[in-house]
Amino acid sequence: MVERKVAVIGVGITRFGEVWEKGLRQLLAEAELQALADARINPEKVDMIFTGNMCGGEFAGQEHLGGMASSILNLNVASTRVEGACASGSLAFRQGLMAIESGRADMVLVNGVEKMTDVSTEHVTTGLMGAGDEEWEGFQGFTFPGLYALMAKAYMNKFGLSRKQLAAVAVKNHFHGARNPIAQYRKEITLDDVYKSMMVAEPLTLLDCSPITDGAASVVLCNAETAKQYCEAPVYVAGSGQASDTLALAERSELHHVKATRLAKTQAFAQAKITVKDLDLVEVHDCFTIAEIMAMEDLGLCGNGKAGRLVEQGQTYFDGKTPVNTSGGLKACGHPVGATGVKQVVEVVQQLQGKAGKRQVKGAEIGVTHNVGGSGATVVVNVFKRGLP
Amino acid sequence: MVERKVAVIGVGITRFGEVWEKGLRQLLAEAELQALADARINPEKVDMIFTGNMCGGEFAGQEHLGGMASSILNLNVASTRVEGACASGSLAFRQGLMAIESGRADMVLVNGVEKMTDVSTEHVTTGLMGAGDEEWEGFQGFTFPGLYALMAKAYMNKFGLSRKQLAAVAVKNHFHGARNPIAQYRKEITLDDVYKSMMVAEPLTLLDCSPITDGAASVVLCNAETAKQYCEAPVYVAGSGQASDTLALAERSELHHVKATRLAKTQAFAQAKITVKDLDLVEVHDCFTIAEIMAMEDLGLCGNGKAGRLVEQGQTYFDGKTPVNTSGGLKACGHPVGATGVKQVVEVVQQLQGKAGKRQVKGAEIGVTHNVGGSGATVVVNVFKRGLP
Repeated sequence: MVERKVAVIGVGITRFGEVWEKGLRQLLAEAELQALADARINPEKVDMIFTGNMCGGEFAGQEHLGGMASSILNLNVASTRVEGACASGSLAFRQGLMAIESGRADMVLVNGVEKMTDVSTEHVTTGLMGAGDEEWEGFQGFTFPGLYALMAKAYMNKFGLSRKQLAAVAVKNHFHGARNPIAQYRKEITLDDVYKSMMVAEPLTLLDCSPITDGAASVVLCNAETAKQYCEAPVYVAGSGQASDTLALAERSELHHVKATRLAKTQAFAQAKITVKDLDLVEVHDCFTIAEIMAMEDLGLCGNGKAGRLVEQGQTYFDGKTPVNTSGGLKACGHPVGATGVKQVVEVVQQLQGKAGKRQVKGAEIGVTHNVGGSGATVVVNVFKRGLP
Repeated sequence: MVERKVAVIGVGITRFGEVWEKGLRQLLAEAELQALADARINPEKVDMIFTGNMCGGEFAGQEHLGGMASSILNLNVASTRVEGACASGSLAFRQGLMAIESGRADMVLVNGVEKMTDVSTEHVTTGLMGAGDEEWEGFQGFTFPGLYALMAKAYMNKFGLSRKQLAAVAVKNHFHGARNPIAQYRKEITLDDVYKSMMVAEPLTLLDCSPITDGAASVVLCNAETAKQYCEAPVYVAGSGQASDTLALAERSELHHVKATRLAKTQAFAQAKITVKDLDLVEVHDCFTIAEIMAMEDLGLCGNGKAGRLVEQGQTYFDGKTPVNTSGGLKACGHPVGATGVKQVVEVVQQLQGKAGKRQVKGAEIGVTHNVGGSGATVVVNVFKRGLP
């Protein structure tokens, strides 16, 4: 039983994209300072720091980001890097949550950061494959588009899914991205653009895939009892769940859904005492369009095999019945892998605070983040509510 | 204020050394299964897993060890990799501690693992440099022996330290390693051996440096209230502290001690309500002989500038007044970087349980672990007591 409650009192985020003028350290610093400013606190108030990052070692020769995150702020507090592939940001968030729940901290800074454009695309592809099973997949020549293409094929075989339904995910996410000032791709695309884009791994074309991105995001977590001292519009962490599955797809009995999402969602929703009907918006892990389809079903937004139709009908736009990825998602907002989980929190918090501008979901009170590591070996689901418990 | 208490109820450790017949997965599996067997529990009892690892990506192409650690046991529980250079194992331990303290878990498996001998020595040296500041140190050509040599020079300049005193650290740790069945170097050495070994970075010769090592270690943590159900001789985690400092040495005002050790020690000792006089043994981070000298002083085992004499007098042998590194330390037991922090816990627990064989500290009741990341940017200090709170 968890007794202490936690609230988000500040958020910060850099521009997502090919940020050639900034390195790992500068991205991290920008997000940290923004979040502290948003929470209106001095760095000295921070008791602990957790930083999600996947490939600092591979892409920048820099492991040990804990020491970097604290020394940017001239702090000597406990500072820890957490990694779970593309779920690294959410894992850092979870550790921050538990640090406050444990009684060891009252104020925690959570960061996610990734600097991906300083190395070649081949280098990025190989580095990211460290998220899968190196012996059973990477060493055999698999890349992540290939793994998700397999999952897409399994899904299509089971339920059917039209090319249009899949492409509609990308079109919707670019529509949202065009309305998000920090998004990597701030332009709308058409179904035809998706159809005509280069094939990457059948059935996934280039516009079915999330891009390579630099970026960082930070949030300030606070013991909910004192949150009101710092923030007029705190957002309460109502529930959190995390689950695992095998690294390798070959070890799973079914590929058309992600078991760990279902397990993590059940934990998070139970803690938050909500059902899927209570949700006003969700940020899901759409590293590929098929991933958003599976996430919708695994989170229970619709029945199995029904997500494609929901998307096609436009119900997942920010002004639809079930808004999904109002940030633009990984697809259009961009996917700096270690930062993505924290970016999702930033988006949901801004929505619940009514600060989401042209993509604002009217009257949003409850939002969910869903962050996946690898092909589903790690999943974190968090539930946020406007106000305090 | 932390309210829930935590105990160690099981430990597991592989042979440390050049373990060519086992990969990352096999090492991890061996340690996990040993620890669960020692705790006499089935995997299904485990609520969460934390795994410390530094260079899985660099050395094995494998990030995302959370998914590996859980699927070895056929579990779907939350499983997270934590990294803080050579302090990764202790950071994983800290997250396990906080997970139980938070009320989210009652039983946690903590692992540390590193597979270092599948790549070249140059590759290892470069990879490990990710623990320092890549822009300010690694990119300029620094290696870790170089950084610690600078610290040794600063220490010598401040306090004086004889070649014999420094070498005596290595001799003592090899004496202990010769009595530890899992140690990489189970042979004694002489002062002369140290003097005559190859110069690496003046004043540090080869036998002043810890080796490149494969290995894994695991411990089972349990809510102290229920520990007695599982274990006849539980060991209580009485205190834990973690602190940070700058990644780069150039940003620090003094190099002859490690500030983060002093801060982490103060936290841990305060929580455990002990003073240095209460200690029966300590496992310190002797990645280089000079590191053990500094650790002794930073932990308060003696006054500043006095550690060399203590070592020279033989007081830090297992049967001396202040036993240090009865495992053989990083120097002789070996230093699989992500595993070292957990190995230190294994050693202290075995000592407090009276299971340390030929290196047993008689009647040991209180022990401390001290684990350093990089050149001191991350330090974790834990205090363990025999029995339950």
